[in-house]
Amino acid sequence: MISLAVILGPNQYGKAEVRLVTVKRDGLVHHIKDLTVSTALRGELAATHLTGDNSVVVATDTQKNTVYAFAKESPVGEIEDFALRLARHFVDRFGHITSARVMIDEHGWDRIAVEGKPHEHSFLRSGAEKRTTAVTVQDDRSWVVSGLADLVVLKSAGSEFHGFPRDEYTTLAETDDRILATAVTARWRHQGENAGWGESFREVRRIMLETFATKHSLSLQQTLYSMGEAVLTHRPEVAEVRLSLPNKHHFAVDLSPFGLTNDNEVFYAADRPYGLIEGTVLRDDAEDAGPAWNPH
Amino acid sequence: MISLAVILGPNQYGKAEVRLVTVKRDGLVHHIKDLTVSTALRGELAATHLTGDNSVVVATDTQKNTVYAFAKESPVGEIEDFALRLARHFVDRFGHITSARVMIDEHGWDRIAVEGKPHEHSFLRSGAEKRTTAVTVQDDRSWVVSGLADLVVLKSAGSEFHGFPRDEYTTLAETDDRILATAVTARWRHQGENAGWGESFREVRRIMLETFATKHSLSLQQTLYSMGEAVLTHRPEVAEVRLSLPNKHHFAVDLSPFGLTNDNEVFYAADRPYGLIEGTVLRDDAEDAGPAWNPH
Amino acid sequence: MISLAVILGPNQYGKAEVRLVTVKRDGLVHHIKDLTVSTALRGELAATHLTGDNSVVVATDTQKNTVYAFAKESPVGEIEDFALRLARHFVDRFGHITSARVMIDEHGWDRIAVEGKPHEHSFLRSGAEKRTTAVTVQDDRSWVVSGLADLVVLKSAGSEFHGFPRDEYTTLAETDDRILATAVTARWRHQGENAGWGESFREVRRIMLETFATKHSLSLQQTLYSMGEAVLTHRPEVAEVRLSLPNKHHFAVDLSPFGLTNDNEVFYAADRPYGLIEGTVLRDDAEDAGPAWNPH
Amino acid sequence: MISLAVILGPNQYGKAEVRLVTVKRDGLVHHIKDLTVSTALRGELAATHLTGDNSVVVATDTQKNTVYAFAKESPVGEIEDFALRLARHFVDRFGHITSARVMIDEHGWDRIAVEGKPHEHSFLRSGAEKRTTAVTVQDDRSWVVSGLADLVVLKSAGSEFHGFPRDEYTTLAETDDRILATAVTARWRHQGENAGWGESFREVRRIMLETFATKHSLSLQQTLYSMGEAVLTHRPEVAEVRLSLPNKHHFAVDLSPFGLTNDNEVFYAADRPYGLIEGTVLRDDAEDAGPAWNPH
Repeated sequence: MISLAVILGPNQYGKAEVRLVTVKRDGLVHHIKDLTVSTALRGELAATHLTGDNSVVVATDTQKNTVYAFAKESPVGEIEDFALRLARHFVDRFGHITSARVMIDEHGWDRIAVEGKPHEHSFLRSGAEKRTTAVTVQDDRSWVVSGLADLVVLKSAGSEFHGFPRDEYTTLAETDDRILATAVTARWRHQGENAGWGESFREVRRIMLETFATKHSLSLQQTLYSMGEAVLTHRPEVAEVRLSLPNKHHFAVDLSPFGLTNDNEVFYAADRPYGLIEGTVLRDDAEDAGPAWNPH
Repeated sequence: MISLAVILGPNQYGKAEVRLVTVKRDGLVHHIKDLTVSTALRGELAATHLTGDNSVVVATDTQKNTVYAFAKESPVGEIEDFALRLARHFVDRFGHITSARVMIDEHGWDRIAVEGKPHEHSFLRSGAEKRTTAVTVQDDRSWVVSGLADLVVLKSAGSEFHGFPRDEYTTLAETDDRILATAVTARWRHQGENAGWGESFREVRRIMLETFATKHSLSLQQTLYSMGEAVLTHRPEVAEVRLSLPNKHHFAVDLSPFGLTNDNEVFYAADRPYGLIEGTVLRDDAEDAGPAWNPH
Repeated sequence: MISLAVILGPNQYGKAEVRLVTVKRDGLVHHIKDLTVSTALRGELAATHLTGDNSVVVATDTQKNTVYAFAKESPVGEIEDFALRLARHFVDRFGHITSARVMIDEHGWDRIAVEGKPHEHSFLRSGAEKRTTAVTVQDDRSWVVSGLADLVVLKSAGSEFHGFPRDEYTTLAETDDRILATAVTARWRHQGENAGWGESFREVRRIMLETFATKHSLSLQQTLYSMGEAVLTHRPEVAEVRLSLPNKHHFAVDLSPFGLTNDNEVFYAADRPYGLIEGTVLRDDAEDAGPAWNPH
Repeated sequence: MISLAVILGPNQYGKAEVRLVTVKRDGLVHHIKDLTVSTALRGELAATHLTGDNSVVVATDTQKNTVYAFAKESPVGEIEDFALRLARHFVDRFGHITSARVMIDEHGWDRIAVEGKPHEHSFLRSGAEKRTTAVTVQDDRSWVVSGLADLVVLKSAGSEFHGFPRDEYTTLAETDDRILATAVTARWRHQGENAGWGESFREVRRIMLETFATKHSLSLQQTLYSMGEAVLTHRPEVAEVRLSLPNKHHFAVDLSPFGLTNDNEVFYAADRPYGLIEGTVLRDDAEDAGPAWNPH
């Protein structure tokens, strides 16, 4: 017999993709921050779901206003700190909000060079890559995940793929020389005290890039693991690394119909389908992730 | 002291977004299916991560080939069935693959009307909406999640929002008449035996649309819960519904500077930010979801 | 010798992508319009370019306000009429604005069916297809181009492609049976008095769809020409049709490595590259297009 | 009376968005090129339109093959040169093809730094910005347009906007301090002999960036004109510059409801609508553009 009793399960709500740009003036030198901020609140929210009683609903418009007001009340600083301040505010201010999650994407800008020198107040968007954070505050605790997305990398040597099993659906040739390309989405969970979010980010990014470049790759999985392992080896503030690596296939074009050889010189870069390699590398004594990765 | 011992955590890999179109000929009448298929395998995959030993890596190219071959070997049918066949194959075929997850988006096509009658072999893409499934097979068991995405709906009456708490960051006016618009992403977990995927899908979709249309809304949360509750009330084959509803804001334009009133007639449809309401509605005796929602 | 004398050439400016939704109430029955409006003005604009003297610059913010105010002052009606009113306003109001161009995309909505009947105020987005217009007003004259975009169609029979020249770079096999799929972008220039924009649009769309469906195709070029020719044959209000038809390739998958035949049953739908067929069909006595297609 | 005589007007066809990546090996140091190539042919193509006779249709698949084969037969080099070779080939090879147009986007890659030094074969995508070209060959002549797209820039000082006319639809406040941001799409037509495409591109880009940064702006139109004028002043090989500059609005958030001032510190970056400023700057003795800008 099937029950007709229906209950409300995990839920959250908030404002997504608040576009925030701040200008800080240091004499004639300007500094800008370009962020996309999303907030999500959890707690005793059954009333609005069941009856439309909104006395528990901190309006998403209010959440947006809070983002802008906080950006004025003190300098935004590192995105992890800004997310922590916002998330802590919602949990402390509203008794029925037991947990808040704040996600921020930071979009980079470089200074325009004028006569070889960086300009004081003119900037150039530095690319599609984003620095990210996802902070969760629950009761007295907080969890910080830092990350990056859309970091597109390619190596034209030092990548092989062979030794995989063959069945009746296998046609792929083995190769000891292929292009390996991916768009890195990486997120890493911090442990202990903040060791300096900015420096930590730059070092994690550097370590992942250098490992991608120098690790001889027998599979994208091996590259993934090596990138995570290198971060954990060198950065004690990181407990766990999660990577999502699409294998952006580059196929050597068959030029033989035209009487030409193609010694891995001319490639077709495919859009879809793509391989997708996802994995986690962590310390064996990492503390439990709690709600860091978003399970309510 | 921080451990240097690093381990491999949850991981999976597969081929994403295999674009598959099939034509079935019933005399002169053609039937087409337009699918985007993604596969992901899990199991004893440590070797490739740690050493690049690929004897455990069923190539993602092989996974792609399998999708195409299976589409020929027997009719694709309902996407849930096709996903089950594929996922079961990978787990049965390869001893070290303990779990497979297959996700399919189905893109709809209508027949072109010619002199008022549906054409035999000419079709018109029916919109951005997608029917979806995510099937997980693990050992002897399977879990089926059906769904839809990008179903954009709007109601121009029957929506209020008031009674929310006000603090120093609250500026939103209360309203008893607003446009409510959203792009529904819904996923629902099945229980028991398959009661007919096609009819089940059409009925769940119909129930959600009718509920959105007719339920007087005091908050988008209330609408979300009502949609889920209605599905569970009428469809015994569904154990749990998860909804993600962006609140696509439509702001009444202030026309007073031009000496005009705006009695909810002229709106600015905003892109960002948007509210985002996410929630789960389930039976109180629903069995545990296991890996249905993708935790490894 | 190269001149250092530099001059300002053709130029225009305006507000792009104003998102406008209107609700008209007919008792309990609501009617909605969902438009994206772009305006562009031309005229004696050298001052702002050369010296930053903005006395000639009708602010793009003012253009946006005008769109919203006009949507209130009288019913929007057909997009061609709304565009004509707006464009005429800018040219008449500002002596130095000699020409205005207004482009509108209309996004369709269907009523949600509740118990089989269309609901009074609840709607469902009807797809990605857009109805479009581009109206130019210059001095006392006006030109109206109507159109549609993102109308995705496919035929699984009635399409061949052979007899093309072969050189040393040709590998494509001839075929007498292929899938033909495209995303139609069509624009057509009106002549004479308005014969009813709404009915004209529906008929042109119907004629193009029926022609695509029923015309046996030896090339996408032939299909293109037939679609344009059919419109001109049946719709005297149309002087010229311009079509842009991407050839969305569907490749039959080679299943022979798996011991399977593929009698045009299983296809890979490719994203890129795609063929792109562009062409114009017009009456031999069509009057000059003037600025209808946007040359300044 | 309306004529029923229908004719074929301007038309072209080709292969769009061929993704090409090449690797050139200089000992252990690799060089990569990442291009998206589109080809379009024009000529005596009436037969296929009117009757489906494809003896005139150089298949778009052949065009794609030619792109790949040419990439092998000699080094790709500058995109303008590669486009010229391809376009010339089609016109020379096929008597009925009177004109060919080749458009190329080049996507940039930087070397990954390892221990401070650029790596030999590992690369990092350098951003969303693209270098572009559009080359037209017709009979014995050729026209080269170079360009760039998606160059996103912002200045947080040195931009004003005031003195614009006010009518009953004007609400915008005048300002002597605003953020000015845009995504530059620039195309410039060459004259005379090739003065070195690579250096020319780098210098034009540098001049436009420096002008954007340093020119005090009273309107985006003034900035546009200054950017074009500076290029023409310093680069004799350029005859004409066309710029399309969306005004990416950054609105200072009204923080007064929260008891806060906002002295141009906190901004909302809007997606839509946006201003769109388009203009041409050219030498007064520039020779006629012919088909350089694509009119058939």
